[in-house]
Amino acid sequence: MTSDALYHSYRAKMQKIADVKYASAVLQWDQETYLPSAGNERRGRQIATLNELAHQLFTEQGLGDVLLELNSREDLMPEAKRNAALSLEDYHRNKKLTSDFVRRMSEVVNTAYHAWAKARQENAFTVFQPSLAELIALKKQEADMLGYEQHPYNALMNDYDRGLTVATVDRVFESLKPQLLELLRYINSKTQVDNHFLHQPFDKEAQWKYGLEILKRMGFDFNAGRQDISLHPFTTNFCSRDVRVTTRIDENDLGNMTWSCLHEGGHALYEQGLPDDQYGSPLGEYCSLSIHESQSRLWENCIGRGKPFWEYNFKHLKTLFPKQLNNLSANQFYKGINKVVPSLIRTEADEVTYHFHVMIRYEIEKALIDGSIQAVDIPAYWNEQYRIYLGVTVPDDKRGCLQDIHWSHGSFGYFATYSLGSLYAAQLYAAIGRENPSLEGELASGKNNSLHTWLKKNIYGHGRYFGSEELCKLATGETLQSSYFINYATGKYQQIYSH
Amino acid sequence: MTSDALYHSYRAKMQKIADVKYASAVLQWDQETYLPSAGNERRGRQIATLNELAHQLFTEQGLGDVLLELNSREDLMPEAKRNAALSLEDYHRNKKLTSDFVRRMSEVVNTAYHAWAKARQENAFTVFQPSLAELIALKKQEADMLGYEQHPYNALMNDYDRGLTVATVDRVFESLKPQLLELLRYINSKTQVDNHFLHQPFDKEAQWKYGLEILKRMGFDFNAGRQDISLHPFTTNFCSRDVRVTTRIDENDLGNMTWSCLHEGGHALYEQGLPDDQYGSPLGEYCSLSIHESQSRLWENCIGRGKPFWEYNFKHLKTLFPKQLNNLSANQFYKGINKVVPSLIRTEADEVTYHFHVMIRYEIEKALIDGSIQAVDIPAYWNEQYRIYLGVTVPDDKRGCLQDIHWSHGSFGYFATYSLGSLYAAQLYAAIGRENPSLEGELASGKNNSLHTWLKKNIYGHGRYFGSEELCKLATGETLQSSYFINYATGKYQQIYSH
Repeated sequence: MTSDALYHSYRAKMQKIADVKYASAVLQWDQETYLPSAGNERRGRQIATLNELAHQLFTEQGLGDVLLELNSREDLMPEAKRNAALSLEDYHRNKKLTSDFVRRMSEVVNTAYHAWAKARQENAFTVFQPSLAELIALKKQEADMLGYEQHPYNALMNDYDRGLTVATVDRVFESLKPQLLELLRYINSKTQVDNHFLHQPFDKEAQWKYGLEILKRMGFDFNAGRQDISLHPFTTNFCSRDVRVTTRIDENDLGNMTWSCLHEGGHALYEQGLPDDQYGSPLGEYCSLSIHESQSRLWENCIGRGKPFWEYNFKHLKTLFPKQLNNLSANQFYKGINKVVPSLIRTEADEVTYHFHVMIRYEIEKALIDGSIQAVDIPAYWNEQYRIYLGVTVPDDKRGCLQDIHWSHGSFGYFATYSLGSLYAAQLYAAIGRENPSLEGELASGKNNSLHTWLKKNIYGHGRYFGSEELCKLATGETLQSSYFINYATGKYQQIYSH
Repeated sequence: MTSDALYHSYRAKMQKIADVKYASAVLQWDQETYLPSAGNERRGRQIATLNELAHQLFTEQGLGDVLLELNSREDLMPEAKRNAALSLEDYHRNKKLTSDFVRRMSEVVNTAYHAWAKARQENAFTVFQPSLAELIALKKQEADMLGYEQHPYNALMNDYDRGLTVATVDRVFESLKPQLLELLRYINSKTQVDNHFLHQPFDKEAQWKYGLEILKRMGFDFNAGRQDISLHPFTTNFCSRDVRVTTRIDENDLGNMTWSCLHEGGHALYEQGLPDDQYGSPLGEYCSLSIHESQSRLWENCIGRGKPFWEYNFKHLKTLFPKQLNNLSANQFYKGINKVVPSLIRTEADEVTYHFHVMIRYEIEKALIDGSIQAVDIPAYWNEQYRIYLGVTVPDDKRGCLQDIHWSHGSFGYFATYSLGSLYAAQLYAAIGRENPSLEGELASGKNNSLHTWLKKNIYGHGRYFGSEELCKLATGETLQSSYFINYATGKYQQIYSH
């Protein structure tokens, strides 16, 4: 068979697998947005079946044969070569998990999700504990099946950021921690800024419309995506021409919707910017969850909590909510939306204390997976860490270890990418600014064009061609350095809290 | 293996197939309700892949072996026996179509659907014609692959109503036609009733809320279903605990939304009433599309255009739209909503002339499949038939042969079930009334309980255990007799048009 024909057969197989995976994503999107409650149970098994089928298709001997043959060919174009190499890597990885295991995982996740939801409702971790223990056991088994060096948690983090290790994350977090604590001490010594204006009644319908407008202004293409409401905001996609974001609206908090739109919008722009002609292939996929998160955090924080963005947008926001905002200056608004205060809930945390929330979860997961602690130990461990890192007392499980959905989804190894994403975001933002000194001026006049062009060229367009570190180096000239975030945060918050 | 274990394995396999089929249905539902336009193309292939996989799973030798063995066992309970027999029948049928053919059909359908939409937009049948010709060729091929006696169209009708033949439908239609024409002549000789009150501005949001209320009053369970908006109203389900209806709202026509809700609501009550513990098995499925349509037409017409229903509901409707309806009596309303007038659009037709719309499509499909006419002949043939049957001149393709979505979906053999459904509905309605002489009194006081109980016992609960004719005989004491519809319609319309 010619290499062309072989590559074509590879692409066709991968596209079919993508069809099934994206179908599963549609069912999950529907589950979070529109599914009537009584349909939940069957939906769980429908998703499990699709995941099992996708896994079966991706472990078929026929695909393996094509991939091995393809990787032996010398006459492939660079893109084809890279696709073939990445897919073979994925194939080997998938092969390590049996279809039974994948189905079992999917089913336990479904039970665990409902147990978690019930536990939250009843504000009792014990309701979630048995399912969680089962999930952790499966996750340990998964780590063993996948294999790892040094730490079993590496096998799981690898799912979200290829090659990411405990050694790397420990090193990054160790360099970040003292500097963040120092910044936090500085902030605590100053007069707190006022953000009460965010916590007034804001009409739901008006917020919804404003959210759509934010997305539009960011450059989100509504012909190739949509926004809906869900309990927890998320972004998903069924191809790069169908990207769905969700948001939630709190009638007494304008911030909830606003920065969830900016955050998910950042994810969504990345997905809409991926090469559509690579549907089903690695080069049509995002680089890693760390880089994905860099895109959401770039928009949510570097841009969306920045002065230039609000210089342009605050006037308009005022016209939408005059009663609530008319007495406010742009500077007061800017300061208020950047209030730093230790708190209980990760998703509501400011960008400084946010990292401590992530570090706590990272430490807990590491310990759960290497067996140093068990599911039953989580609440006590969690509460103790919040006392140490953030100096806050966790009043109950709902505002403690039950707050995040990830564990109920079986997502262990995910959290570190949140912090890494923020660090990447700061480093990217600095690089964009270096290359285009008028960036902030453009943002202040509502222009995103050069920003989009840069992101498309340096991030979106590459798909999974490069790993996180390599992509970062290509885009910014260096691998990940936490100093960029530290400089960004220190400069920003010393100015905000200077008086 | 014990018969129990064998049956269990059969059920597990069938449930997995159901998972994939229902997943495909979710993707189709999303396509009609929320899909952003740019996502259409990939969605088409995602659906095609799921259909292909479902077909592959349903033609696996392993399933065939289990089915053959199961059907040889003597110790099965009646329900298990029936499931096994029906699934074996389905299996043999599926085996006749190759996976390639199923995928090809799914892909051509996707192209055809878009061609049809474009043709409608441009009001030009020629835009749709090439795709349609391709589909017809595939449908002929399908009939040949499936095999048939007497007429190839029998093979296709069999998909929608097992065992239905051209001979049967011809006979029913021949008995119906002269009587309907006589009734129509009678009506035409009388003063026309007035329904202009339906064609006033009715606020969209108010109509939407009223539609939800209609469904609620019918007994639709919103924990196990929902309503959304789509271009063409339809009902779909992803298990009997997740049934989705859609409606459309015309701001200048209250009738469009109202009777589409009642119609789809009738379908939905059937789906919600099917045995949920039979998920994936024939006994968890509807009997046939004719019987399905009997449920929608029962609610839309026998009940929803009946005096008792509006005796109860009209007062409430008036409170919602006082400006539009305050000067109207219940009797004027009743007469108006039953206006009989030959028209161009099937879905807007009254229940008398409706049958002619169906007969025309039925004759065209028969002729297309046996080759007496070709796709290119459709517009002329269509327009001629409308002149003959209904005495109307078709002004353009949009209001002619492009009006229905079915052909673009590859649904040939479907239309006859619409008329049969109406006939079944009249026969069922008569039977319910015989058994419970206070039925109309109950409806007039807003009570549906005994109606629901009867339908659950005689229709819903049986799933696919019986064929249409058998089910009808068990429920009403006779196989299908068009005389019930004739008597119902003659009685009703002679009263309405008597003065």
